[in-house]
Amino acid sequence: MNAEIICIGTELLLGNIVNTDATDVAQALSELGISVYRYTAVGDNPERLTEVVRSAAKRADLLVTTGGLGPTLDDLSKQTVAAAFGKKLVFHPECEAEIEAYFARMNRPMTPNNRLQAMLPEGCTVLQNAWGTAPGCVFEAEGTMVIMLPGPPRECKAMLRHRVVPYLKSRSRQTIHSHYLHIFGMGESAVEDRLHDLMETSENPTVAPYAKEGEVMLRVTAAAENEAEAERMMVPVLEQIRGVLGELIYTETYETLEQTCLELLKQAGRTVAAAESCTGGYIAKRLTDLPGSSAVFRGGVVSYTAEAKQSLLGVPAALIAERGVVSAQVAEAMARGVRERLGSDYGIGVTGLAGPDGDGSGLPVGLVYVALTDGTDCWVRELHLSGERERVRYTAGHHAFDMLRRCLTGLPIVPAR
Amino acid sequence: MNAEIICIGTELLLGNIVNTDATDVAQALSELGISVYRYTAVGDNPERLTEVVRSAAKRADLLVTTGGLGPTLDDLSKQTVAAAFGKKLVFHPECEAEIEAYFARMNRPMTPNNRLQAMLPEGCTVLQNAWGTAPGCVFEAEGTMVIMLPGPPRECKAMLRHRVVPYLKSRSRQTIHSHYLHIFGMGESAVEDRLHDLMETSENPTVAPYAKEGEVMLRVTAAAENEAEAERMMVPVLEQIRGVLGELIYTETYETLEQTCLELLKQAGRTVAAAESCTGGYIAKRLTDLPGSSAVFRGGVVSYTAEAKQSLLGVPAALIAERGVVSAQVAEAMARGVRERLGSDYGIGVTGLAGPDGDGSGLPVGLVYVALTDGTDCWVRELHLSGERERVRYTAGHHAFDMLRRCLTGLPIVPAR
Repeated sequence: MNAEIICIGTELLLGNIVNTDATDVAQALSELGISVYRYTAVGDNPERLTEVVRSAAKRADLLVTTGGLGPTLDDLSKQTVAAAFGKKLVFHPECEAEIEAYFARMNRPMTPNNRLQAMLPEGCTVLQNAWGTAPGCVFEAEGTMVIMLPGPPRECKAMLRHRVVPYLKSRSRQTIHSHYLHIFGMGESAVEDRLHDLMETSENPTVAPYAKEGEVMLRVTAAAENEAEAERMMVPVLEQIRGVLGELIYTETYETLEQTCLELLKQAGRTVAAAESCTGGYIAKRLTDLPGSSAVFRGGVVSYTAEAKQSLLGVPAALIAERGVVSAQVAEAMARGVRERLGSDYGIGVTGLAGPDGDGSGLPVGLVYVALTDGTDCWVRELHLSGERERVRYTAGHHAFDMLRRCLTGLPIVPAR
Repeated sequence: MNAEIICIGTELLLGNIVNTDATDVAQALSELGISVYRYTAVGDNPERLTEVVRSAAKRADLLVTTGGLGPTLDDLSKQTVAAAFGKKLVFHPECEAEIEAYFARMNRPMTPNNRLQAMLPEGCTVLQNAWGTAPGCVFEAEGTMVIMLPGPPRECKAMLRHRVVPYLKSRSRQTIHSHYLHIFGMGESAVEDRLHDLMETSENPTVAPYAKEGEVMLRVTAAAENEAEAERMMVPVLEQIRGVLGELIYTETYETLEQTCLELLKQAGRTVAAAESCTGGYIAKRLTDLPGSSAVFRGGVVSYTAEAKQSLLGVPAALIAERGVVSAQVAEAMARGVRERLGSDYGIGVTGLAGPDGDGSGLPVGLVYVALTDGTDCWVRELHLSGERERVRYTAGHHAFDMLRRCLTGLPIVPAR
């Protein structure tokens, strides 16, 4: 089965917003084993949209559109797409009731133009939108399946997960299951190199790498008649990957390194605190992005000056004078200081030069010391990071989280000091 | 002049990466007054790419491609796009020298396949890439101008700004100039409503709104024979907008609210520190994202627990017991505490409930208190924010920065307590 995605909205063509819908749809389809050969962004212009739809329908088995389902005048997607397949819009009373219920839930008055959203292509299956007002729909025409989704990214994402994926799975004789292995500590090309034969030869299950900022994710996907069979087929492949990459795989369950730390801390009933210089609150921010972080994160100190390191963390002035603020010793003193002051089980300390300019000391930009203490031992990584400020700061945080998850799972971190 | 963008890379169609290149190119062209009617993402597949290029060339005066210029085997863009216009690739020795110089600068060995990057379409103008190894190019064929840019977002963005925009400007008899007005404190629809007549009637200069997370940007653009004339044409429009929106416009110079604060602090020779509860380091992170922030940011405390508020910020336990951690009084005590402890001129304190769950106190999720003190007065905003955790945290930070920039420019903040 091959698919095309059509994203509708003049704001996309003005560069006003980034098209995350296309990425989300592409990823969802690709995980179902559906090949996406092209996606197109087009404005709220009926003639051009019709042309895009007509020519895509000639090539694809499945068309997914996003955007233009709203109640305002320039939202012409449904009408135009339906008409491109010779279909009319008809009134769906059950949709009107849904839209009314949504406004009631949100405590907002429903304006009459919202009723327009209950007009959908004749013969379609309605995809109810529990995350907004505009319902989606699926219909078939001229041998093509057409799925229409709302444009707001949050709604589009939820509709994909809770409506589109179950619908497409229910229509398929095959079931598709995936495992996700998250890897930190090896670049994408090295991972590909180590798993080259496996990735080249595997057809079912497939093994595909995804480069993410500072890390790599491997997706293993099997298609089978049922879930148990798919899982059975993946066992030897997963074993082989685990054998090659071992402890570099930091999770097969969670989404990020910080979430892995959060869950490990919860399971162990432990807490952490962070003292940050060059990361400037980024580590605290990433932990507190996660709901439930208050159970394991005691807080942090952004000690952006030498004085703050002394007054808030108790780093001795003599140590700073002797070793310099960017040193393994100061990172360790920061980690120990924040742990004691905040009463946490673990303490993180980060000091370094994020750039773009140095601090006049002659030390190179990208030099960062990351320390982790459990109150007894303290481990310090000396990093020489390349890239821009954002990347140096982000990668330094990744190392702090990696050290913590290794500590929590009994893996080697770095030689203890 | 109308344009289409073609983004090349199978990773786009797998949903592996978000297509920020399309957005950046669309925005750059749109700012030059060039209409983008469509953009397409296509994989590293010569037949499908050829088909996309051929059909786009029939419609557009300008084609901009991104991606596929690299040295590896699947990077076939140049060859395929050139061939679609009946052109060959030829060797450009000056490019090879550039690529060699790049590797020397990066202290990395240059592998032979990198020489392939000096092969470019015959008769093209080379767009040198100072931010990576793959040069871009411009050529004209069959009445269409074709611009090819590298795919990595950072390189693409730099090439747009420093190569493409100047090139297109030099080819135009018109010059285009823009002003950007950044607005906080009024939603997009309210801004459009207030400026409705101006936006509807204006053709040159044009006035266009861009919704950004938590704020609105207005772009005023004039096309004229020279810059002075363009500037002269914009004066009455800018005056009118300033008259309507007044102090809601936080900058016409910088890019973000936090950068505006940084520059205002620098100019005033003042410093700030932040005590964060529900924002959890996000305010510190946003300030320290900016190079040069160490001159004005003294540091911060992430006091994610009541104990941390007492031990690190000196918030009295009795005050927390009496008013609750989420209260105007605690926000004020946090702001005053962090200011004193870090020796800054201004102190920010934020406490609230970011969600998704409440804290059992019965207070609603989205309730946030943001306090700012200059050591004498203290101002507190009580916010009732809607949306998800990320949005609540981000918007609370926006309010903190807005209060600070108002304080620094002598504008009313909120009634002093």
